[in-house]
This record gives sequence, structure tokens and C-alpha cells, in this order.
Amino acid sequence: MDTLDLLQRLSERAQFSAAKMTKIECFRSERLLVGLNCFEPGQEQRVHAHTGADKFYLVVSGKARFAVGDRTIEAQAGDLVLAPAGVPHGVERAFERTIALVAIAPAPGA
Amino acid sequence: MDTLDLLQRLSERAQFSAAKMTKIECFRSERLLVGLNCFEPGQEQRVHAHTGADKFYLVVSGKARFAVGDRTIEAQAGDLVLAPAGVPHGVERAFERTIALVAIAPAPGA
Repeated sequence: MDTLDLLQRLSERAQFSAAKMTKIECFRSERLLVGLNCFEPGQEQRVHAHTGADKFYLVVSGKARFAVGDRTIEAQAGDLVLAPAGVPHGVERAFERTIALVAIAPAPGA
Repeated sequence: MDTLDLLQRLSERAQFSAAKMTKIECFRSERLLVGLNCFEPGQEQRVHAHTGADKFYLVVSGKARFAVGDRTIEAQAGDLVLAPAGVPHGVERAFERTIALVAIAPAPGA
């Protein structure tokens, strides 16, 4: 725990890439993965699913269109988007620079 | 999944009480509990620990002083506060009306 930063300011931890959305790891155990997904405008995350693991996105800043199951969801800062185990989900498009906190339990393999 | 609200606007889900801080459940499975902790100014959450479960707070709005292990942490909107398994944690004081998203993995007993 010595090396773990117990307080993380997410706007400072975020990193963006012109090439594609980025993933930043904030915390990992077998039980839980916490990270950031960072999108430049127009970037996406392909639809995928996690077998046996529940996931959510919490939009910290920005605005994006998510796909969850058969739904399309436009979400912005302060919105929680749930993707329960096995449900396909992704980000169709970020409308502006967007930071989403992501948690997955249990954590997927490294 | 039919009854699960896949998109939750946290500012609308929050509920406050003059008596004490409140807890709102957003999602629960065996693997993961996601909820809100809502504080009026001056309210607190006593220090406690979760054996075998990792937890974090993400401050959605407001500002509060957290206790984690032997540290005191002042956190505001956009800050992640980690409380790994077994580490005592709580909220010493909310400085203003504060909403924190909380996730615990695996979920504690109902």
C-alpha cells in the first residue's frame, strides 16, 4: 500500500492520444479494476463484453454516446452507465474530450 | 436487467437527510455494489473497514475530508479516494453538500 496513491485527481491522471482512446490504471486487485478511459472528440471504444464481471462507467467530464445491450445512451459528466456481466457495451463516439472512470469487478486478467 | 436503469444521472438520484448522511443503492450483484453517499454540510461517516473487499469513493460534487488508514484526505469533485481491503476509512466531515459515488467489490452482505 506504500506505493498506492490513495487520492488521485482524475483530471491530472488523464492522458489522451490522437491515435485512439487511452486506458489508465488507477487501482487493481483480483477483485476490482479501477481506471480511466480517455477519449478525444470522435474517438470510440469497440463494443465488447466481460463474462462474469460487472462494469460501470462514470463520466467525469465530457460527453459521449455509449452502446449497452440494445440501447444507445448519451451520457455526460455525473452520469453512471452500467454494463452488467455479459452485456455488450462500448462507446460509439465521444462528442468532446471525455474522461470516464471505469470499474470492473472482478478485475479482468492483466 | 429489465428493471435496471442502465443510465443514472447521479445528481437526480441523490437524496439528502438533515439527520445524517444517506446511502442510495445504484447497482448490486455478488461481485459489486455501486451506490451514492450523500452528505449535508457537517455530516460524517464513521471510520470502518471492509474485510476482503476493495472500495473507492469518487467525489461527484462537493468537498469533504476523508480518513483512510493513517491519512487525512481533502477531496472534491473529480477526486478518487481508494480504500483497499481492510484499510479503515470514513468521512470526517463534509464541507458542503457532497455526493460521492461508492463502489465495493465484492459487495458486502445485504
